[in-house]
Amino acid sequence: MRTKVVIIGAGPAGLLLGRLIESEGIETVILERRSQDYVLGRIRAGVLEQGTVELLERAGVSERMHAEGLVHDGVELSFDGDTHRFDFRKLVGRTVMVYGQTEVTRDLMQARDASGAATVYEAEDVSLHDFDGEAPRVRYRKDGVEHEIACDFIAGCDGYHGVSRASVPEGAVKTFERVYPFGWLGILVDRPPVAEELIYAHHSRGFALCSMRSETRSRYYVQVPAGERVEDWSDERFWDELRSRLNRETADRLQTGPSIEKSIAPLRSFVAEPLRFGRLFLAGDAAHIVPPTGAKGLNLAASDVRYLADAFIEYYGARSPAGIDAYSTRALARVWKAERFSWWMTSILHTFPDTDAFGRRMQRTEFDYLVGSEAASRSLAENYTGLPY
Amino acid sequence: MRTKVVIIGAGPAGLLLGRLIESEGIETVILERRSQDYVLGRIRAGVLEQGTVELLERAGVSERMHAEGLVHDGVELSFDGDTHRFDFRKLVGRTVMVYGQTEVTRDLMQARDASGAATVYEAEDVSLHDFDGEAPRVRYRKDGVEHEIACDFIAGCDGYHGVSRASVPEGAVKTFERVYPFGWLGILVDRPPVAEELIYAHHSRGFALCSMRSETRSRYYVQVPAGERVEDWSDERFWDELRSRLNRETADRLQTGPSIEKSIAPLRSFVAEPLRFGRLFLAGDAAHIVPPTGAKGLNLAASDVRYLADAFIEYYGARSPAGIDAYSTRALARVWKAERFSWWMTSILHTFPDTDAFGRRMQRTEFDYLVGSEAASRSLAENYTGLPY
Repeated sequence: MRTKVVIIGAGPAGLLLGRLIESEGIETVILERRSQDYVLGRIRAGVLEQGTVELLERAGVSERMHAEGLVHDGVELSFDGDTHRFDFRKLVGRTVMVYGQTEVTRDLMQARDASGAATVYEAEDVSLHDFDGEAPRVRYRKDGVEHEIACDFIAGCDGYHGVSRASVPEGAVKTFERVYPFGWLGILVDRPPVAEELIYAHHSRGFALCSMRSETRSRYYVQVPAGERVEDWSDERFWDELRSRLNRETADRLQTGPSIEKSIAPLRSFVAEPLRFGRLFLAGDAAHIVPPTGAKGLNLAASDVRYLADAFIEYYGARSPAGIDAYSTRALARVWKAERFSWWMTSILHTFPDTDAFGRRMQRTEFDYLVGSEAASRSLAENYTGLPY
Repeated sequence: MRTKVVIIGAGPAGLLLGRLIESEGIETVILERRSQDYVLGRIRAGVLEQGTVELLERAGVSERMHAEGLVHDGVELSFDGDTHRFDFRKLVGRTVMVYGQTEVTRDLMQARDASGAATVYEAEDVSLHDFDGEAPRVRYRKDGVEHEIACDFIAGCDGYHGVSRASVPEGAVKTFERVYPFGWLGILVDRPPVAEELIYAHHSRGFALCSMRSETRSRYYVQVPAGERVEDWSDERFWDELRSRLNRETADRLQTGPSIEKSIAPLRSFVAEPLRFGRLFLAGDAAHIVPPTGAKGLNLAASDVRYLADAFIEYYGARSPAGIDAYSTRALARVWKAERFSWWMTSILHTFPDTDAFGRRMQRTEFDYLVGSEAASRSLAENYTGLPY
């Protein structure tokens, strides 16, 4: 079997890449270790930058997003009960779209299935070969049968724990990491959100986030120490903790209910460099992780995919390797800026066990400065809505 | 003996306060532990915010500054050899004035001496009494004779090591502190500056700053580890180290010469709260220290003095205590923002022994983001030229 690009991973990055290049006549095969239902069951981020929205439009999968997604003009930051709304539309003329990653993935899957492009779910023992030469191959087993695909390129879109980055020889990749001493305990609930826009709250008890997936489904988070077990958090304990971290008015408005999902995600900053190893390219979580503060994870995957799709289109169309040669540098420049923003948002909004009184005042002053400065507000807004490509 | 306001310290803060309120008919006595020559011999900062310039105009001591000072429209930041100029005039319509603190102090001293206002130099064993009541008193010894001054208010403008803050009962003052694991080794030299504007340079060997006092006198600094001894730094070693931290073009242009002053200053962030204790008010270094990155020390003293002078003028003129009641809160709001800016500038431009690879990339990315973002550039510019009062 032979194709042009083998894409490892049928998450949003891999599916979006496939969609963008298939529509330009570049044949792909997607290999996914999990089942389709498993992939769709993963609860992830839900805030799309305007550039991500535009990319989904270009991929022809924006109809339901525009019908069901919520356009947000701003967010609220709260610091020890003092609140301020940052109006992105006024500040930088841009907005964000609240539309769950699960829904993006579903739309992309349906479009791919309808197009007839090949996707292999539950592909076992995927292995990458000879990507340092001219003729890379990918092997996998499906229903007990061994398969091999010859290809021009491999796109590793298989996440932090995937086989793609793990296939790169040690020493060829440089990694950067920051592990935070806390995680986010998240709850999904079928109740209307407490506010029309997201609320990011710093509180001496820890960070909290009021988010949503739709007008009837809410997503709430509280910062918990690393090592906390989700079994120790009843719904009631969660709601009490959340309320204690919001200002009185917001807490009183909160509509609680039984959780339909509850989990703890650790917070981590991670970057692997470079993003290209011969004919293997990494994109999205396979190469970098951001803490969720600032909602950059999915958007960064989309931005990698945009650069990579354009590089492949240039390679096959104009017969020019310029795009694939520039991919790693271009994508990483944007990755690092999003890493900076996510690290900064995380740093000012969470409580850190080792922070002294001076450090806590720096957090508070950052909030006061943001609120009082149009330039600082615009900086926040341009990062949150997405820096230029 | 009796006066309205006893000012402790004849540095720029005390002298400027005296000048501003004497001109409104509020009588003062300044007590200074050191001699006039000693005070004038201290080498300190040299960059004045526009608001500080305006305050010196209001104090009637701006003539020589406008004749001899250098108006700077921007600064250059350098990161591992890559440089970018931030044009403050374009970004925020404001500039800074390069004019040494020593010269500001000299102008203020001459104006005070000419006005006949009382200044006692070499006042020994100054002690503050009864400032928690209605009738504070200050005692000191001069030429072996004991003196006591009765007054309405005491203004503590006597620096970090002064008697004013030390006179406040323990428990009444809350302090915030960050000690950095390095200092600045500074050299003063009678050579033209290497560039027309200041150059702040991050380098893997450590921070460097190219500054100046005039068109023929330069001030250069290199970051050195805490505990370094100035005796171990010959002029030659200093120039070699400085050159190694600048980009080639700048290093080649550097005009070196014998140092006329050479010293190491530790870096520290420090804030004491509140700034008022009954009828004692703290201003400037007596209450807060910033690391010199960003040149905020003298400007922050001037900003305290502006609030305090206006408060006294309101008290004696309109018979209203509103200004003195609000002084601590008003001044501290601006202090904390300058502390934030100075801490941030210090954090991105220096090398830190404990910073990992991720942290170093955050420094680099902060530079790249600043260079590429108009909003971030404006934020830098508005802080450097001085936030509004």
